[in-house]
Amino acid sequence: MKNSFGNHICVTLFGESHGPSIGAVLDGLPPGMEIDRAFIASQLALRRPEGKTGTARREEDHFSILSGVFEGYTTGTPLAIVIPNENVRSKDYSDTRYLARPGHADYTAYAKYHGFEDYRGGGHFSGRITAALTAAGAVVIPALKKKGIFLGSHILRCAGISDRPFDAYLQDVEKLNHTSFAVLDSDAASAMKDAIVKAAEEGDSVGGILETAVLGIPAGLGEPWFDSMESLLSHALFSIPAVKGVAFGDAFSMADARGSEFNDPFRMNKDQVVTASNHNGGINGGITNGMPVLFRCMVKPTPSIFKEQQTVNFRDKENAVLSLSGRHDPAIIHRARVVVDSMTALVLADILTGRFGTDYLGGKA
Amino acid sequence: MKNSFGNHICVTLFGESHGPSIGAVLDGLPPGMEIDRAFIASQLALRRPEGKTGTARREEDHFSILSGVFEGYTTGTPLAIVIPNENVRSKDYSDTRYLARPGHADYTAYAKYHGFEDYRGGGHFSGRITAALTAAGAVVIPALKKKGIFLGSHILRCAGISDRPFDAYLQDVEKLNHTSFAVLDSDAASAMKDAIVKAAEEGDSVGGILETAVLGIPAGLGEPWFDSMESLLSHALFSIPAVKGVAFGDAFSMADARGSEFNDPFRMNKDQVVTASNHNGGINGGITNGMPVLFRCMVKPTPSIFKEQQTVNFRDKENAVLSLSGRHDPAIIHRARVVVDSMTALVLADILTGRFGTDYLGGKA
Amino acid sequence: MKNSFGNHICVTLFGESHGPSIGAVLDGLPPGMEIDRAFIASQLALRRPEGKTGTARREEDHFSILSGVFEGYTTGTPLAIVIPNENVRSKDYSDTRYLARPGHADYTAYAKYHGFEDYRGGGHFSGRITAALTAAGAVVIPALKKKGIFLGSHILRCAGISDRPFDAYLQDVEKLNHTSFAVLDSDAASAMKDAIVKAAEEGDSVGGILETAVLGIPAGLGEPWFDSMESLLSHALFSIPAVKGVAFGDAFSMADARGSEFNDPFRMNKDQVVTASNHNGGINGGITNGMPVLFRCMVKPTPSIFKEQQTVNFRDKENAVLSLSGRHDPAIIHRARVVVDSMTALVLADILTGRFGTDYLGGKA
Amino acid sequence: MKNSFGNHICVTLFGESHGPSIGAVLDGLPPGMEIDRAFIASQLALRRPEGKTGTARREEDHFSILSGVFEGYTTGTPLAIVIPNENVRSKDYSDTRYLARPGHADYTAYAKYHGFEDYRGGGHFSGRITAALTAAGAVVIPALKKKGIFLGSHILRCAGISDRPFDAYLQDVEKLNHTSFAVLDSDAASAMKDAIVKAAEEGDSVGGILETAVLGIPAGLGEPWFDSMESLLSHALFSIPAVKGVAFGDAFSMADARGSEFNDPFRMNKDQVVTASNHNGGINGGITNGMPVLFRCMVKPTPSIFKEQQTVNFRDKENAVLSLSGRHDPAIIHRARVVVDSMTALVLADILTGRFGTDYLGGKA
Repeated sequence: MKNSFGNHICVTLFGESHGPSIGAVLDGLPPGMEIDRAFIASQLALRRPEGKTGTARREEDHFSILSGVFEGYTTGTPLAIVIPNENVRSKDYSDTRYLARPGHADYTAYAKYHGFEDYRGGGHFSGRITAALTAAGAVVIPALKKKGIFLGSHILRCAGISDRPFDAYLQDVEKLNHTSFAVLDSDAASAMKDAIVKAAEEGDSVGGILETAVLGIPAGLGEPWFDSMESLLSHALFSIPAVKGVAFGDAFSMADARGSEFNDPFRMNKDQVVTASNHNGGINGGITNGMPVLFRCMVKPTPSIFKEQQTVNFRDKENAVLSLSGRHDPAIIHRARVVVDSMTALVLADILTGRFGTDYLGGKA
Repeated sequence: MKNSFGNHICVTLFGESHGPSIGAVLDGLPPGMEIDRAFIASQLALRRPEGKTGTARREEDHFSILSGVFEGYTTGTPLAIVIPNENVRSKDYSDTRYLARPGHADYTAYAKYHGFEDYRGGGHFSGRITAALTAAGAVVIPALKKKGIFLGSHILRCAGISDRPFDAYLQDVEKLNHTSFAVLDSDAASAMKDAIVKAAEEGDSVGGILETAVLGIPAGLGEPWFDSMESLLSHALFSIPAVKGVAFGDAFSMADARGSEFNDPFRMNKDQVVTASNHNGGINGGITNGMPVLFRCMVKPTPSIFKEQQTVNFRDKENAVLSLSGRHDPAIIHRARVVVDSMTALVLADILTGRFGTDYLGGKA
Repeated sequence: MKNSFGNHICVTLFGESHGPSIGAVLDGLPPGMEIDRAFIASQLALRRPEGKTGTARREEDHFSILSGVFEGYTTGTPLAIVIPNENVRSKDYSDTRYLARPGHADYTAYAKYHGFEDYRGGGHFSGRITAALTAAGAVVIPALKKKGIFLGSHILRCAGISDRPFDAYLQDVEKLNHTSFAVLDSDAASAMKDAIVKAAEEGDSVGGILETAVLGIPAGLGEPWFDSMESLLSHALFSIPAVKGVAFGDAFSMADARGSEFNDPFRMNKDQVVTASNHNGGINGGITNGMPVLFRCMVKPTPSIFKEQQTVNFRDKENAVLSLSGRHDPAIIHRARVVVDSMTALVLADILTGRFGTDYLGGKA
Repeated sequence: MKNSFGNHICVTLFGESHGPSIGAVLDGLPPGMEIDRAFIASQLALRRPEGKTGTARREEDHFSILSGVFEGYTTGTPLAIVIPNENVRSKDYSDTRYLARPGHADYTAYAKYHGFEDYRGGGHFSGRITAALTAAGAVVIPALKKKGIFLGSHILRCAGISDRPFDAYLQDVEKLNHTSFAVLDSDAASAMKDAIVKAAEEGDSVGGILETAVLGIPAGLGEPWFDSMESLLSHALFSIPAVKGVAFGDAFSMADARGSEFNDPFRMNKDQVVTASNHNGGINGGITNGMPVLFRCMVKPTPSIFKEQQTVNFRDKENAVLSLSGRHDPAIIHRARVVVDSMTALVLADILTGRFGTDYLGGKA
């Protein structure tokens, strides 16, 4: 398992921040899924940093598909996608080889890999790897859309500023897909951008909460134990760097609620079973109930800050002080939203394929 | 997968609330792990309802071990544990066969299983199954202790009342293991109990937040992508009924924090790398850093309430009103804590066995 | 994995020869599969020893289904089946605790489990466990039949005596299903029985080759790499005790053939693609071609013989001589055929469910 | 799973015969394994065709490692290896797009992938993919050697000609590792080569039997059910194109043996438990007993022959005649031996890592 996820459609990630390439292999894709290269490129563009809210490291992400696609359609065999690392400045890292950046994986990588890890730019732990994940997700998102399944994420809260909640879901999701800074309320968007720039100017960073909606999911998906919809989604979401909390529906805010408030009454809407509210985020007992699946990811503030920090030299086992140079993001929440979308799409494609068979999302069905 | 979890030590659950028995199979256990039947029984007792804070359904949980144990020690082959269902009143459920209890899995089970599901008492979705999970966890907890790994959970918040946070971790954890109502502050404990009883009297229910600490975990456990420590724990925790949110360290409360606040500075403590704070819950980049692993589970209020609720008859596709009778818990958070402990222990045993080999937790190592 | 097999429908085995019970858990079964208890009992009867060709240990195999079945149909949740061990004489084994029976797993179990293994009657390695496997297979065989998939095995060769090859496949398979000694030619059957009895009288044992045919499998099942139809079947078949060789089609006997002989020419039969011969056993490139899937299992002679054998005392690390007492089979090939059928049925049910979705073999589809 | 294999060290294959590149991802490798690029190149050279016994398609196999290696050692993160396809003549295939080559996967690929498959040169089914597998195996073979584990395969039989059996195992294995045509007896080697050339001249092909020996494997590896050593090896071996039979020890030839002949008596050799014969191929009850692991793979004659063959046009559903042109091997058994070695090495590395932990084969242990 380790760097793979999915039982039916399985994604495997590889690569290091400063190695020659990063990439992903998607196995279990149905034959006959149309590949939309422009969409993959546009999703990668949404992940790329821009302006003052992102790192100065900019990459074009010229991806290549090495296998699994023939004449524009998936073959059903593994699809390998590779993205070269082009804008690499490893020198930034060699000076601080054994100084653990607080909040980062430098020390834990050392503890796990005994010093054999590629330390440059976080190596395999780098957020850079999420470009491959984004591309992998972009392979399956169009097939979900063809089945009427739409998804999107917005920044519900960042640096103390709140966006308005999802309202008319489908319009909001479509709007988000054409917005590089994923905030529904434009005033909130401006305020958040300002707060990110301000944090950057102070050598600091901010985090926040992403909210994701998945629309059009049929009822009856997920398993009662261990492979509940929440279990599978959270497993995937927690592998995204900086995600430290995941909650479904209103779980973040409803710790003090009573059952009579949190239960979502069922109602008939024509022939359709619906719920009058959606505090449970479209999932009962681990299984989808046909309502929008809603969840929130708590994204911690980027650990790379320019303020002086206390730390250790883990090789020499002594206390040290760290002043970072290099190119870093003052926030990654606005870039992470497309990663969350991709991860979510991969989980859904996996579950749908297991439920309805290998052809479900492909050209035959 | 579905009803199994774990790559190296794997637990499989089976059973229905009103079937003859529930049970668990543990595969991958090391040979030579001592089986402490009294401890298993005491953990099952902690899960059982009692007094006015629990359902009137009371079971002795007379478990049997069918395999995998010989002369008091694990053999290394699958350990099957079975618990008969003794106190079953299925009549309570037949009248409301097609009425979806809001917040419950009745409708989603029907959507998934097309009416073939055992609907009585929630069937395979019932919290009853957690007795088997509790027993399975109790098989491995003593082996973790022998390796210096201790864990415990307390009710951090319930019905608007807060417990004090973990303080002197080890003493707190040991205290919790001998406390049937897992709250550190005795005044808070009384207030919570009162609030649960009050909710029960009003035909309603309450939820809250459990906080768990794992002490003694070595640095370097977990994987960067997909099998991060957070991913594996959350996957398991979200399979516990009523858990709707999982957050590591202070993630629930730190959405507005800056990097300079959330980063945990590393420091040397004699020869040991430690962190001066633990906002990240002992995990950096998905890998343990040697500090206590801390996380919180948001437990929703029990969906079974006695207030009249709006719902549907999902077979006849028409609106309906539901008034529950039967025996139900006004809160399960105090019973869930031992389930969270068991689930956590199983995840850790799995990861440790993968990392250090099949004998690590057994009698040979 | 270890004691589990299957990605979509997964069987987990537990139990020891002289423990309280053996059993199996089937996860991933579709909802609405009718359970035929009489068929399960009849398959268990086919596995049981009888007359002079089997061990004197006779068990009624009173199986219980603990979960996953409701009102005669599978629910879609894990089905646990338990068979108590009733006729146990452990005394036969305690005297030879540390003497490795040649050809048996006594020494390898000790090497693996460090002496914690349940040594009585082979413990978890015992052929006794195949009763649980037989029952598990008997759960899914009727559902395969409903889809037009039929399977059966005969003893192609035993003690130097050959049966006639499969001829009119369907009639042969149906005939085998009503034959306790699975040989197509009645003269060959008599001769084999005589040879088994003769071997028994001489304190020795015999083996042979089972041939299995699966009819009605659609074309297009299996995967090119790693999960080829041959890979999945052989993985399962080699877990049956005493199976030491597996070959598809005519692979056992065609090592000297040329491509022009071994290639099976394709032909149209009305609208159906067929092959004029079937040397490849219905599988090309790991994928079924729609022809009968044919394979052979080489079953070694039962290692438990009554002749004096040289061995070691593996605890004391010294040479020893072993004279077995106890109750043993002079051949197991005639009992193994139903185990091979069950194992094959489980593999096929797993693959079909992955290919066509979770409902494929159930009551909804 | 599908195109992945291994629970602890997992290999994933991708690529098509006429696509841009083929490759493999190895996940779960220990940190600190030295990468021997020259050895990888030499193993790839052993797989390449040469002279008159191989296809005219010749590739240099200029592999690149994209990730998982830093300063000459594995990092512990996924190692991706890519080999470009350089010598591609797709025109050979377009004329016969819908004509099923007998014995090949053309028709079964069509049945599975509905016409979306990359048909050129067998696409993902091509033996070309074994170059990636060979490279992946070559990554782990040196680490096995450091642990005293050696392996090699020879052509036991080809075109009716037999090699001598393994004799002095270690010398034989070492000799094989420096022999491009893997036959122990030089007269047999010449005769086999002649027979291959003769078959080629007649537009036909030959197959045979490979025998593999693994030396230095500790006792106690494997699992009793499903993940027996035989199960795991056969699963992997049957995914190699053209392998249609796998047998352990003397299983191919001992169908008529009695228990007293097939049982291998245990003996002490100084402090070591050994067996006096090795008919069981070093495996008892699915677990290694410390003796050499021996098995044979039946390799069918290459299905690509130049004789005119009867077949069908599977799109038009009509009978047809096929005369192949293009570049094809008259035998692949001599090229397959290094693929079998790689596959075997990967299985062993996987099992050893599961048994002894993630560092076992790396630089730390």
